Amino acid sequence: MIQVGINGYGTIGKRVADAVRAQDDMEVIGVAKTRPNFEAETAVKKGYPLYAAIEERAPLFEESGLELAGMVEELIDAADIIVDATPSGIGAQNKELYDEYETPALYQGGEDADLVDVSFNARGNFSEVEGADHVRVVSCNTTGLSRLAAPLEEEFGIEKMRVTLVRRGGDPGQTSRGPINDILPNPITLPSHHGPDVKTIFPDLSIDTLGMKVPATLMHTHSVNVSLESEPTADEVRDLLEQESRLFLIRENMNIDGAGKLKELAHDIGRPRGDLWENCIWRESISMEGNDLYLFQAIHQESDVVPENVDAIRAVLGTADAAESVAKTNEAMGMGI
Amino acid sequence: MIQVGINGYGTIGKRVADAVRAQDDMEVIGVAKTRPNFEAETAVKKGYPLYAAIEERAPLFEESGLELAGMVEELIDAADIIVDATPSGIGAQNKELYDEYETPALYQGGEDADLVDVSFNARGNFSEVEGADHVRVVSCNTTGLSRLAAPLEEEFGIEKMRVTLVRRGGDPGQTSRGPINDILPNPITLPSHHGPDVKTIFPDLSIDTLGMKVPATLMHTHSVNVSLESEPTADEVRDLLEQESRLFLIRENMNIDGAGKLKELAHDIGRPRGDLWENCIWRESISMEGNDLYLFQAIHQESDVVPENVDAIRAVLGTADAAESVAKTNEAMGMGI
Amino acid sequence: MIQVGINGYGTIGKRVADAVRAQDDMEVIGVAKTRPNFEAETAVKKGYPLYAAIEERAPLFEESGLELAGMVEELIDAADIIVDATPSGIGAQNKELYDEYETPALYQGGEDADLVDVSFNARGNFSEVEGADHVRVVSCNTTGLSRLAAPLEEEFGIEKMRVTLVRRGGDPGQTSRGPINDILPNPITLPSHHGPDVKTIFPDLSIDTLGMKVPATLMHTHSVNVSLESEPTADEVRDLLEQESRLFLIRENMNIDGAGKLKELAHDIGRPRGDLWENCIWRESISMEGNDLYLFQAIHQESDVVPENVDAIRAVLGTADAAESVAKTNEAMGMGI
Amino acid sequence: MIQVGINGYGTIGKRVADAVRAQDDMEVIGVAKTRPNFEAETAVKKGYPLYAAIEERAPLFEESGLELAGMVEELIDAADIIVDATPSGIGAQNKELYDEYETPALYQGGEDADLVDVSFNARGNFSEVEGADHVRVVSCNTTGLSRLAAPLEEEFGIEKMRVTLVRRGGDPGQTSRGPINDILPNPITLPSHHGPDVKTIFPDLSIDTLGMKVPATLMHTHSVNVSLESEPTADEVRDLLEQESRLFLIRENMNIDGAGKLKELAHDIGRPRGDLWENCIWRESISMEGNDLYLFQAIHQESDVVPENVDAIRAVLGTADAAESVAKTNEAMGMGI
Repeated sequence: MIQVGINGYGTIGKRVADAVRAQDDMEVIGVAKTRPNFEAETAVKKGYPLYAAIEERAPLFEESGLELAGMVEELIDAADIIVDATPSGIGAQNKELYDEYETPALYQGGEDADLVDVSFNARGNFSEVEGADHVRVVSCNTTGLSRLAAPLEEEFGIEKMRVTLVRRGGDPGQTSRGPINDILPNPITLPSHHGPDVKTIFPDLSIDTLGMKVPATLMHTHSVNVSLESEPTADEVRDLLEQESRLFLIRENMNIDGAGKLKELAHDIGRPRGDLWENCIWRESISMEGNDLYLFQAIHQESDVVPENVDAIRAVLGTADAAESVAKTNEAMGMGI
Repeated sequence: MIQVGINGYGTIGKRVADAVRAQDDMEVIGVAKTRPNFEAETAVKKGYPLYAAIEERAPLFEESGLELAGMVEELIDAADIIVDATPSGIGAQNKELYDEYETPALYQGGEDADLVDVSFNARGNFSEVEGADHVRVVSCNTTGLSRLAAPLEEEFGIEKMRVTLVRRGGDPGQTSRGPINDILPNPITLPSHHGPDVKTIFPDLSIDTLGMKVPATLMHTHSVNVSLESEPTADEVRDLLEQESRLFLIRENMNIDGAGKLKELAHDIGRPRGDLWENCIWRESISMEGNDLYLFQAIHQESDVVPENVDAIRAVLGTADAAESVAKTNEAMGMGI
Repeated sequence: MIQVGINGYGTIGKRVADAVRAQDDMEVIGVAKTRPNFEAETAVKKGYPLYAAIEERAPLFEESGLELAGMVEELIDAADIIVDATPSGIGAQNKELYDEYETPALYQGGEDADLVDVSFNARGNFSEVEGADHVRVVSCNTTGLSRLAAPLEEEFGIEKMRVTLVRRGGDPGQTSRGPINDILPNPITLPSHHGPDVKTIFPDLSIDTLGMKVPATLMHTHSVNVSLESEPTADEVRDLLEQESRLFLIRENMNIDGAGKLKELAHDIGRPRGDLWENCIWRESISMEGNDLYLFQAIHQESDVVPENVDAIRAVLGTADAAESVAKTNEAMGMGI
Repeated sequence: MIQVGINGYGTIGKRVADAVRAQDDMEVIGVAKTRPNFEAETAVKKGYPLYAAIEERAPLFEESGLELAGMVEELIDAADIIVDATPSGIGAQNKELYDEYETPALYQGGEDADLVDVSFNARGNFSEVEGADHVRVVSCNTTGLSRLAAPLEEEFGIEKMRVTLVRRGGDPGQTSRGPINDILPNPITLPSHHGPDVKTIFPDLSIDTLGMKVPATLMHTHSVNVSLESEPTADEVRDLLEQESRLFLIRENMNIDGAGKLKELAHDIGRPRGDLWENCIWRESISMEGNDLYLFQAIHQESDVVPENVDAIRAVLGTADAAESVAKTNEAMGMGI
């Protein structure tokens, strides 16, 4: 059993913990948190040993009636691998610590690409991370774009990919983020950094991206254009994408018009936390104009990287190949709608 | 086993179906729907026999690959009781049908109080509905106010209750409702109809209400003032409310500042669909100024009436008394946070 | 003096009235409205003769203390030209009436292109509408795209234009429109109808568009890609666009990050109603990748068609050529920031 | 002519500048700003001498092509009175500077009440501030409540005032503020600080307040309850409030349902920046239940304190009494709808 420690038990960390626990070849030996709140309480209730990430704040946990298993250093020392799910920029600060205990670490997409040896996406470059000490699981958006680019490139060839990412302003629980009533070009300078981030997975891909931020919390939505090297029909594209295990093609008769109904579907089928681990592509939107493919996809920022983190654990430790790992992860989590 | 039919499988109906299924003294013999969509698909996947609510549209289900068990009339005929969870106003149109088959019916709070023999809230008037043919489970807001008023009236006496209901503009999946960026007095004339609705449960209560509509989808929030007939301390009020099984007092150290984090908590503890069946009262907000009690409570419009519907089934059929039914419902659903 | 009648005194109609009044070669002889409200009150205060659009409702105006000048038919009869600024689809119903009185009419972009003889954009096809009986001033989005396409096509040649239109869900005063918290592909099928609408002005342009709807009220925002036939530098594109009188390039040192600050700028410089008649293009966003131009522009849905309506009056009646009319309109309104 | 200096040229400062300029007994001798942006540009275009508030950043203005008149100290020295319209908390830091130059100063409601000698509202305590060195014009919400409380107390007597303030999350141009989709009790502990703030104007008033924050930008909305010492009819209350020059009673036939349409009305009648300096009270909402008065009012957070700042200038310098000043201010600004 792979002993997994999770540093950071917020939006991503808590989901990765549950996903790791669902696997039969790994277990969660502890989660670390900086301060007590409802999430720390839940971690304890779920039986995850709770570690304090900041020594001075350790007493706060006990004041809140939450028993600690120790300090984060002990967790790092004991783990075969650490999943760092701390807020953007904190992972970089933790790197030294992981090195000190010689524990390989996975970081999230909020960290800079050059912090790590290699960036990771299960569909894109599973085999490239084996044995690496520092690996970055790319962001939710980059994960979504990588899963889409891979089959298109393999089957039809990509001449140029152009994507407008209409991003949610904050997560449902992030009450101090905006905007309240605006559409923000973000960043204003073009092309945006999202394209280069996809290139950490596919160095040769020609891709330009534009980002915006809007007052919505549920999911990002991508307006995608791909100039292909060949001219398949829209149906051929649909058939190709339907074979991908982490792409969900929203069927026409579902009458789903946006992220609200997508999340409602996830809730109705019993998904934990209403999570949508798959890219959600409107089947109806897939269309071809000449060699230009167009489509819309919605990306659940809180969860699409969760199965990728699970796969990255096996990829780094070399315990399974891509097909095997993805199949195991999917099966254990219940991928597919 | 009580044979329960559910007419309307949307926001409320699908939740009531799952809650009924969780009980050991009743079962769902079928659900009726007007047209195929992702919810109809899920009903079938979950094994609920699916009935067409509108004869002419029956073929649409088969075109969508969804097998029908029959027409809604057959469901009504076979049921011991019908839960009508259709949109506001449709319940009134269905009444004749239920009479025709002599099947007692529960309606939702969107129907007029004078459509029915009696309105229902488990904490307020459980014993008054036995044997009634037409019973209305009061709305989410009235349910929330009734649960709060009952213990306060019993323990301290209520001189006057004044509540501002800041209501979500629409549910998460209702994409055509607004406002987008406004605060609407709604209704503009005062006091609002919410107070009289609470009086369908507590006829002698003195209550004035004011309603507003804002651009949020997760929960309603009530700003509550109760002029009490005595002057308890805030702690005495807290102690009283903590004894109520369907009031959840949000603890200070949870660091929950609004509905977003409340829903996140619900997700984390594994609540189906992230539902919050309890009134969510900020413990810290409970305060006394003279004999004036003030507090904030959040009400989950999609789910707080679900346990009430389950109780109403037993109340109408006379198969359990209030304490027994509430305990059974709570146990089966997993009430309490 | 051209005698202008305005049928419909809402968002567009009231702005066109003020803009027509500001010109020295035309005057507003009356405005028609279906029912009394604050806008009707203001029309009277401003001295616009008020006509009832629906005979049966005429008494309502007098009950509200608003004196009527007559029925809309009298206005149509007296006018040299009618600007129909009624809601989408009502213009089509009014067409017969305008024919009956042989009064040429301008319609708005909400009407179908095939209702009219020709669609109109001042920068695109001013000279093509002279003498036409029924002319459609294209929608706010199409106006914005036409103003941008014209100089690019003339100077650099357009191979293909691809635009994602992130549209505001409703206007600031439209409180029943949504979504509240969602990002909606709208329409879901691709490409959207916006591209073909631009082709009513530029029949030979190759353009694909995608539309979304988000919870914001202030302005639409376009994410624009133009594959050019040549490879200018970004500065050359900036220089070209800066010469256009109805394109406003937002300067870097203004620190404007979205529509909220754009509107604030409009208010600060004294624009009536905070209107932004120009396309608002982020100067910093203009960039070239190979022959691919990228940029962001914000479009004020309530007002960018207002100067176009004024120009269309002269264009239809043949009283000025494009350069002359645009200069007059701009000067009278105060175009340019 | 009173020589007025304005330190801070943002939301409030720029409006106060324009309002001061409109008076015939005072003039703006300069405005100070910390950094160049579109507002600084506009100040220069309007002919307000521009001063740098932070010496090190002075060169940034010239780099942006904006000529400076000097440093803020020179402005303070030259002024008869300073209106400090800097962000909350900065006023406190500036106090020493104003003392150094012996220039009396007006602060805004974001500063603590105990920073100053006395707090100010024109309708409440005009005569109490003459000769004071440090005066705080109370916040938008407190201004709105003071204007309402004064006539009610004088005419009917107030037993207890209870108000729920549903506050906009941020101003239209504040893009980093939230929440996006939530209703936040804010503060969670009750009663909120707004009540004590009203008592800085009316020390003997019994008032309890509750605050919430919602995703809207246009105006705050108050749900007001006043237990009166007598029992007037609703019409008597309406008649009383209609006599107040800074209360606007929204007439029923205006069909105004919220802040969006209120702002549209302001725009239509030509108000600068669409400002609403008056409390906007829904006439229809005014109602009496026993001795309990209920009503809704909307408060424009960006502008209702502007006329109060103008009056405070005269009040501090003793150049006019309350009636005279309010009449002058109203006349010059165009108060009344």
